[in-house]
Amino acid sequence: MTTNITGRSTILTLFILLSISTSMVFSQGPNTLRLDGFSDDAAVTQRRLEEQFRAVPAPKSAREHLRKLTIEPHIAGTKEDYATAIYVRDQLRSYGLNAELKEYDVWLNYPNSPSIVELITSRRQRLAITEAVVPGDATSSHPKITPLFNGYSASGDVTGPLVYANYGLPGDYDELKKVGVDVKGKIVLVRYGNSFRGVKAKVAEDHGAIGCIIYSDPADDGYMQGDVYPKGPWRPVASGQRGSVQYLFDYPGDPLTPGKPAIDGVPRLKPEEATDLTRIPVQPIAYDVAKTLITPLKGPVRPKGFQGGLPLAYHVGGTADVKVRLKTDMDYKIRKIWNVIARIDGSQEPDRWVILGNHRDAWVFGAVDPNSGTSAMLEVGRGFGELVKKGWKPKRTIILGSWDAEEYGLIGSTEWAEEYAADLREKAVAYLNLDAAVSGSSFGASSVPSLWKLIRDVTRDVKDPKSGKSIYQEWQERSREGRTERLANETAEARIGSLGSGSDYTPFLQHLGVPSTDIGFNGDYGVYHSAYDSFYWMDHFGDPGFLYHVAAAQVWGTLAMRLAEAEALPFDYTDYAGQIREFFAEALRLAKQRNLSSSFNEQDMNKAINDFAEEAARVEKNRRDAVSDKDKSKLKRINDALIGVERSFIDERGLKGRAWYKHQIYAPGIYTGYAAQPLTDFRQAIDDRNSAGTKESLDRIVEALKRATTTLQRARD
Amino acid sequence: MTTNITGRSTILTLFILLSISTSMVFSQGPNTLRLDGFSDDAAVTQRRLEEQFRAVPAPKSAREHLRKLTIEPHIAGTKEDYATAIYVRDQLRSYGLNAELKEYDVWLNYPNSPSIVELITSRRQRLAITEAVVPGDATSSHPKITPLFNGYSASGDVTGPLVYANYGLPGDYDELKKVGVDVKGKIVLVRYGNSFRGVKAKVAEDHGAIGCIIYSDPADDGYMQGDVYPKGPWRPVASGQRGSVQYLFDYPGDPLTPGKPAIDGVPRLKPEEATDLTRIPVQPIAYDVAKTLITPLKGPVRPKGFQGGLPLAYHVGGTADVKVRLKTDMDYKIRKIWNVIARIDGSQEPDRWVILGNHRDAWVFGAVDPNSGTSAMLEVGRGFGELVKKGWKPKRTIILGSWDAEEYGLIGSTEWAEEYAADLREKAVAYLNLDAAVSGSSFGASSVPSLWKLIRDVTRDVKDPKSGKSIYQEWQERSREGRTERLANETAEARIGSLGSGSDYTPFLQHLGVPSTDIGFNGDYGVYHSAYDSFYWMDHFGDPGFLYHVAAAQVWGTLAMRLAEAEALPFDYTDYAGQIREFFAEALRLAKQRNLSSSFNEQDMNKAINDFAEEAARVEKNRRDAVSDKDKSKLKRINDALIGVERSFIDERGLKGRAWYKHQIYAPGIYTGYAAQPLTDFRQAIDDRNSAGTKESLDRIVEALKRATTTLQRARD
Repeated sequence: MTTNITGRSTILTLFILLSISTSMVFSQGPNTLRLDGFSDDAAVTQRRLEEQFRAVPAPKSAREHLRKLTIEPHIAGTKEDYATAIYVRDQLRSYGLNAELKEYDVWLNYPNSPSIVELITSRRQRLAITEAVVPGDATSSHPKITPLFNGYSASGDVTGPLVYANYGLPGDYDELKKVGVDVKGKIVLVRYGNSFRGVKAKVAEDHGAIGCIIYSDPADDGYMQGDVYPKGPWRPVASGQRGSVQYLFDYPGDPLTPGKPAIDGVPRLKPEEATDLTRIPVQPIAYDVAKTLITPLKGPVRPKGFQGGLPLAYHVGGTADVKVRLKTDMDYKIRKIWNVIARIDGSQEPDRWVILGNHRDAWVFGAVDPNSGTSAMLEVGRGFGELVKKGWKPKRTIILGSWDAEEYGLIGSTEWAEEYAADLREKAVAYLNLDAAVSGSSFGASSVPSLWKLIRDVTRDVKDPKSGKSIYQEWQERSREGRTERLANETAEARIGSLGSGSDYTPFLQHLGVPSTDIGFNGDYGVYHSAYDSFYWMDHFGDPGFLYHVAAAQVWGTLAMRLAEAEALPFDYTDYAGQIREFFAEALRLAKQRNLSSSFNEQDMNKAINDFAEEAARVEKNRRDAVSDKDKSKLKRINDALIGVERSFIDERGLKGRAWYKHQIYAPGIYTGYAAQPLTDFRQAIDDRNSAGTKESLDRIVEALKRATTTLQRARD
Repeated sequence: MTTNITGRSTILTLFILLSISTSMVFSQGPNTLRLDGFSDDAAVTQRRLEEQFRAVPAPKSAREHLRKLTIEPHIAGTKEDYATAIYVRDQLRSYGLNAELKEYDVWLNYPNSPSIVELITSRRQRLAITEAVVPGDATSSHPKITPLFNGYSASGDVTGPLVYANYGLPGDYDELKKVGVDVKGKIVLVRYGNSFRGVKAKVAEDHGAIGCIIYSDPADDGYMQGDVYPKGPWRPVASGQRGSVQYLFDYPGDPLTPGKPAIDGVPRLKPEEATDLTRIPVQPIAYDVAKTLITPLKGPVRPKGFQGGLPLAYHVGGTADVKVRLKTDMDYKIRKIWNVIARIDGSQEPDRWVILGNHRDAWVFGAVDPNSGTSAMLEVGRGFGELVKKGWKPKRTIILGSWDAEEYGLIGSTEWAEEYAADLREKAVAYLNLDAAVSGSSFGASSVPSLWKLIRDVTRDVKDPKSGKSIYQEWQERSREGRTERLANETAEARIGSLGSGSDYTPFLQHLGVPSTDIGFNGDYGVYHSAYDSFYWMDHFGDPGFLYHVAAAQVWGTLAMRLAEAEALPFDYTDYAGQIREFFAEALRLAKQRNLSSSFNEQDMNKAINDFAEEAARVEKNRRDAVSDKDKSKLKRINDALIGVERSFIDERGLKGRAWYKHQIYAPGIYTGYAAQPLTDFRQAIDDRNSAGTKESLDRIVEALKRATTTLQRARD
């Protein structure tokens, strides 16, 4: 795009250059819409190809995939999970793609016997920890519905006074301390939200709690958000959220093989050596049960912000007369899991890999999470298969990964990334993740900044199935609605989030430095990790016409095709530089508030950012020139550099105290678990008021930026 | 204070001048704490006098007053109300004060028969609109408890589809419109909060609603705030908020005699001519009843922010299958009300009046609202009486006003202010209001800026009964807690609010231009305008030891004594100028957002503010000099000017469309009703995007500022 190859005047060229931010300009005729990274004639071919691809995914087949994938609960490592692997493999094969299972042997727990939660006041009351059968939703009465439990909970049988600790964030324990409540030797009841549940377990354990019960408050995803299932899409009263309490922020994947693949010959840690596992029993419950537990609580007046949506005033408890017994009995074992890997070899650059990944395992039926994404993957595979049948060979290799055991801690993807780390470091162009592809119609994305423009470009080319506008336009308009009057008048781009953790991009981006994206269509979705995340739910609330499953496949597949076919890879590091500048400004503001700004060298960082930004702008210009000049050796040099930049952000020493995480810009926060904490160690040192830490961590970031700049310089003539 | 009367060096003088903001500096010896407006020797006498006064108010007598005042429901115009007037008059007389009843004949309504609220779905269900008997609180079963009704509701019998309209703010109707719901011909259900209930009635009526039901949502003052009565101080499930729906923002007082006293010989409007009365039936209900009404609602998904604290998803309704019948049957009549007026004539300036006011009528028992204030008034009277017995004659006249029918619309105070308007314009030094004096232990104040320093000074001299720190210190520390980390490090003064409306200062300040204050001790208080605002509630939650009743009397009485005795009145107009500058900056910011800033002359306003600020600073210096010089004629000139400034803010043409309100800086907003909307008409014109209006209204404000500057200039030598 934006190159002067059609003999237009310099003024027009200038106009085109000024239009970079819109990413796409119209040429005279039809079918001459430009594409970033493609020469004009290549763009025509590419557009035709993409349109052929996008014509394939269809609601009917997407619906049928989802129906088949969600007939039974298929938690990782079970025969039902294996059956979905076979289904995915065989479907992909039937489309003409090469697809194989890839096994790993990993440490997983299931409940041996149902957990016990008892309220002990003047009497003893055993509470139900099962989800209710919902009229209409046939699968809600399935005999094999996974019991309510937390992946990687310890086994235990503990009794102690109950403390209500709000979201279980460090700040919540500070508040408890202020009102004189210590959780040591007690059991905490916390609500889901505002942090990854593994963080809740860890913070509880760190504060001396002997057990942790997690419930879904109706304020967060129940009736205070809207009508509850089956009347509406929100969580009904007798529904709980399963989920892993792995210390994902320490390392994901198999707990016994950190940094290594869980295959034969790799030595295992003893479970007690694994640092990403909690030592206390953790148990999810529904909000009817939580109400029973909260009602008798006494103790000091609740701190501000602790109130949830149950119809009573929340006290913090902690008194000896309201106790709870929590018993969990876990069956831990090394168990087999099954990824499915399909590939379409590249014709010109087979050792450049564009990877699409989605997990397949679910806590129960997983209609939204993750099998809406699996359905989309199968439709992408079907689309690619149609092109292949017509003779298409992508320039670069395309790999589809159907991961297993993501729910336990990104296990399948992490083990695969660890096994093929050397290949991925050398060959990976980008990793495109899709987890819960569809829970509604609102497109959203998180991504490294170098791929922002690509995501915006692609969504401009795919129609929103309901409005007929582009997906981008719908997305941008929604973005604007959330802004203030003044900002809304500006033609701001739709916002793209930062990648933290909680899905399979983590091993690719944060362990290996592979540029990554994560996309999906979101909506009102209150049945997360419950038995009601079912086909019936999707068919009635999430995507009744399965049109957004099709749209997800179209966007995802188009992203991959552009990366696989572009003459010059559409990576923009000026956006990355700008984003790092913003992150640093925000961190600096906090550092100044804490009087830490003299502890580190602000100038060094500013210079590193500026140098990176300058080199990025130079490469961007060269990249455009190289496309118009069709200079193949220059293009190769530039593409190699563009792929290498993200790898430069990897520091092999790893982050402080968690060496598996190596990316210097993006990682999940230790106390967020899912949410990104950009400039991670620097930001953490500021939060901890650790002045030496701010210097050390910023020095590493500066080094990473310098490496990135050097990498970009390799693109020079 | 801060004058150079002890022969210190110029540098020290400068130091002292710089210390103005701390308002009080220490001299060498004991008992030489300075007082603003008093020469050093006068300050010694004054401090001794104030201490004698503050030694009088006592918990035991405060408690006994409250007990007696709250034995029976005493809504305005009833014989029980009359009995409280007699009690107050006789108590004040017993302390040696001159006290008299002052009657007015005003338009008031009581319910003729109980209102009817029926839910009509497939069946018809009549709902209870009474409050429950609460075990422990003996008065909650009193046979004469006022029925749940709204003062100045119209009579009516209407049936229509029910629409839930959140707080009933104009923005809420905009949201309803967005989702396609029109309230025309329908009955709206709105919740209390975020605006005065009269505004809710008016906005409903303006949108074509045929009836308006108002309920107390548990999110706002029920269980989501804390434990409910009688376990805690918040509103229980079967409790409703009575209250007036007069269009107070149009004019307060007797609806039939706007601007005139409701006495013999004054012609009455016909009720249908009164512009401050709604024409639709309005009815308060409890939240158990609201739940019954909200549960069946259908219609579009609720707009964001409409959700309250009931355990269900709030829909907006508006469909024909969920209707409500609302019947109100009001007994309107001209009825007698009784103010009690006591006075202590001034010895030197009898025609300078310092007025303390509190209303006495209550919707039911009114332990907090207003009789905690009445109890404090009686303790102030007792304190003043003790001083009088010892020979004290204040320099200026002190008047105590126990107002009636405030609850209906500031009736007693307004009629009195209208009757004595000429006197007040000439003589009033200040009006010191106390309404709900005590619902907890947190001091708060609203005031004209000229009296900010006085309020801070006085609260520095009164001890918080629990902590032993000064009330000021407690108040300041609480103010800091609410601020951000960075701001909290500054030694910021405790914040004083702006006067809007909702209590008896309105006729004094906003109709006549008398400098006014409003103070009180606040806490967790969820039983406002219910039968549970009772002696039992106060004795258990609000002020169990009655120590804050004593503190309220001490602060209030001391404020009055300083204003009655000061050689130079402690009015600071530099604070006023600063506050107007802030108000203008804020309004300007909004005007710029709306592209209105070219419509009016910003420079004129800035100049008027600057001139006023300069003259205020000059007067402030002269005032201090005059005190140290004991220059009586100069002091008189200065005092006359200081009193006149507030009067200069009055524009006899009145505010746009509501001529009764004449103050150019402070008035309640039309759509807030209680909350102040400073620079009222200018701000409203900005909100309405009325560019001509911004010019016209700002011109009037500039004129008022110029008058104020001229008034201050009269203080010059």
